Amino acid sequence: MTMTGTDGRGAVALLDHTRTVVNPHLRSTVESLPGSIRRVAMYHLGWERADGTPDTGQAGKAIRPALVLAAAEALGGDPAQAVRAAAAVELAHNFTLLHDDIVDEDPTRRHRPTAWTVFGIPDALVAGDAMLALALRLLAEDDHRASSAASARLAACVIELCAGQQADCAFERRDPYEVSLDECVAMATAKTGALLGCACALGALYAGAGEEEVAAMDAFGREAGLAFQLIDDLIGIWGDPGRTGKPAGADLAAHKKSLPVVAALGSDTAAGAELAELYRRPVLDEEAVQRATDAVERAGGRDWAQTQAADRMARAVQQLSRAVPDLSAAGDLLALAEFVTRRSR
Amino acid sequence: MTMTGTDGRGAVALLDHTRTVVNPHLRSTVESLPGSIRRVAMYHLGWERADGTPDTGQAGKAIRPALVLAAAEALGGDPAQAVRAAAAVELAHNFTLLHDDIVDEDPTRRHRPTAWTVFGIPDALVAGDAMLALALRLLAEDDHRASSAASARLAACVIELCAGQQADCAFERRDPYEVSLDECVAMATAKTGALLGCACALGALYAGAGEEEVAAMDAFGREAGLAFQLIDDLIGIWGDPGRTGKPAGADLAAHKKSLPVVAALGSDTAAGAELAELYRRPVLDEEAVQRATDAVERAGGRDWAQTQAADRMARAVQQLSRAVPDLSAAGDLLALAEFVTRRSR
Repeated sequence: MTMTGTDGRGAVALLDHTRTVVNPHLRSTVESLPGSIRRVAMYHLGWERADGTPDTGQAGKAIRPALVLAAAEALGGDPAQAVRAAAAVELAHNFTLLHDDIVDEDPTRRHRPTAWTVFGIPDALVAGDAMLALALRLLAEDDHRASSAASARLAACVIELCAGQQADCAFERRDPYEVSLDECVAMATAKTGALLGCACALGALYAGAGEEEVAAMDAFGREAGLAFQLIDDLIGIWGDPGRTGKPAGADLAAHKKSLPVVAALGSDTAAGAELAELYRRPVLDEEAVQRATDAVERAGGRDWAQTQAADRMARAVQQLSRAVPDLSAAGDLLALAEFVTRRSR
Repeated sequence: MTMTGTDGRGAVALLDHTRTVVNPHLRSTVESLPGSIRRVAMYHLGWERADGTPDTGQAGKAIRPALVLAAAEALGGDPAQAVRAAAAVELAHNFTLLHDDIVDEDPTRRHRPTAWTVFGIPDALVAGDAMLALALRLLAEDDHRASSAASARLAACVIELCAGQQADCAFERRDPYEVSLDECVAMATAKTGALLGCACALGALYAGAGEEEVAAMDAFGREAGLAFQLIDDLIGIWGDPGRTGKPAGADLAAHKKSLPVVAALGSDTAAGAELAELYRRPVLDEEAVQRATDAVERAGGRDWAQTQAADRMARAVQQLSRAVPDLSAAGDLLALAEFVTRRSR
């Protein structure tokens, strides 16, 4: 497994560059939205405060648009022509965040109150709808020859994201024992992998790539996305070593059925049974969270997730080499994949 | 103003025919949705009961798909080629209904419990998202040469629908005196006129019509849509004479700021002031509803709405004749416009 040893600096520069290139386009598009919807979108994207005054604009890391541009470039395309597609993917991503926050009743996002808590559910819901329509409108209005195929692909991806979100909600309502690991992996693939895969596929389409290269690029993004989810889940239990981020145990205290937890619950071990027992308690105190953490580890959940994450990254690189046989041309994509799975900043 | 004297029978036959042609396509498309999302969509569209068993399928009158097909035919196109576009418009319409019912907290739709009351807000919200994506995917996957333009137009229309819904919610929160008639007409145009206009415009695009004809067709649908809204608002106050439908006074009892009400409130008359006074009461009993009904009439709200509706229909026909100079070729469109504004069945 070849990896660019950039220590994340290459990826950070790439993401900075992506924001510089894509944000002006994204912003002028969002500013075209009708009055009140624009306000919610500008707030959600970090460009405005709740009162409409300018904000610093910390609107996410732009990983998905960066994947679009990097995939286009890796396949010999001109990334400048894919800027609209990159903006569309970022809009689609933010539509899902707006609606997920409503559905999950999340109070904060990117260290700020979520849009629905500021503007109410009706306005946040409708603004999300408009952002989805805007994403697909951007592609439909693009006169690049790949725009129809890109449009169809993004729309299909949104349906998959919806299915993933729906499955996630359904899992939370079910008994810990009832959710199988396969179901959970499928849910994470739909909810997290699909849009990363779609971003790479759109870049490939805009480079004029053939069906097989597009499919390989999609698979690369999906596998990297699942690796990212596995590592995110590990951090949700054991914390982000040496970094500010989620506190250790946060996901367990919230009874989250993350991948390592579901792996542990399905392990048919005494530790798995102990974890299930703990998850049936309505509230887990600090000591119980510690016991649950140990139980996930003893039941093999941590090892499984770590092995899976490495395996998924290996598969991602394998898929990438199908699309770009000379991987030295795909350095940016590898740097981005490494960045998301390291979550180093 | 020429009108086909079909007594609505022509339109009913047209709508029956539209459902026969479009529903199989619509249904197979909806059946392609992932499991739980499909269930919500199938329920909302009246094809399944809440328990997943088959239902009779009374899923709306198919006015919008009928407009797509009739507009295509009126401009010399082949309606058979526009079936996919017709299905897309019906999906987009149903996406708005699903989300509007959540936002407005409506308990019933088409004499059945609304989807969010049956499946919960998260599942209904996500199913609506998927139906919007499916609508735009249908167009993007269509290899008709008009599909990109149709896609862009439908996406732009959805943004307008969102703005209309957002304005509607904002009006309900404001004081009766604060909403101007112009704002209210703009809201109704966005919320009701836009999609009827878009349906006609898509038909025109699929017939290979030029920009001006497409714009005229859009304007025809919009004007007819506003006429429909005005008449619907009149029925909401004075009832549907001789028909089963909304009971007289229903909109007033609900404090609805419908078009005749806003016209009356802005009339600068004693009756208008009396109406505003009544609307400030938290609950209106039968006698108060009767007084409010009289006040709308004395303040000129009824006359204004009736005159406006007739005027809008005249403008609709005028716009139609710009697109189809020989109106005898547009008999189906006229019959549909007459049907929606008569609300006879």
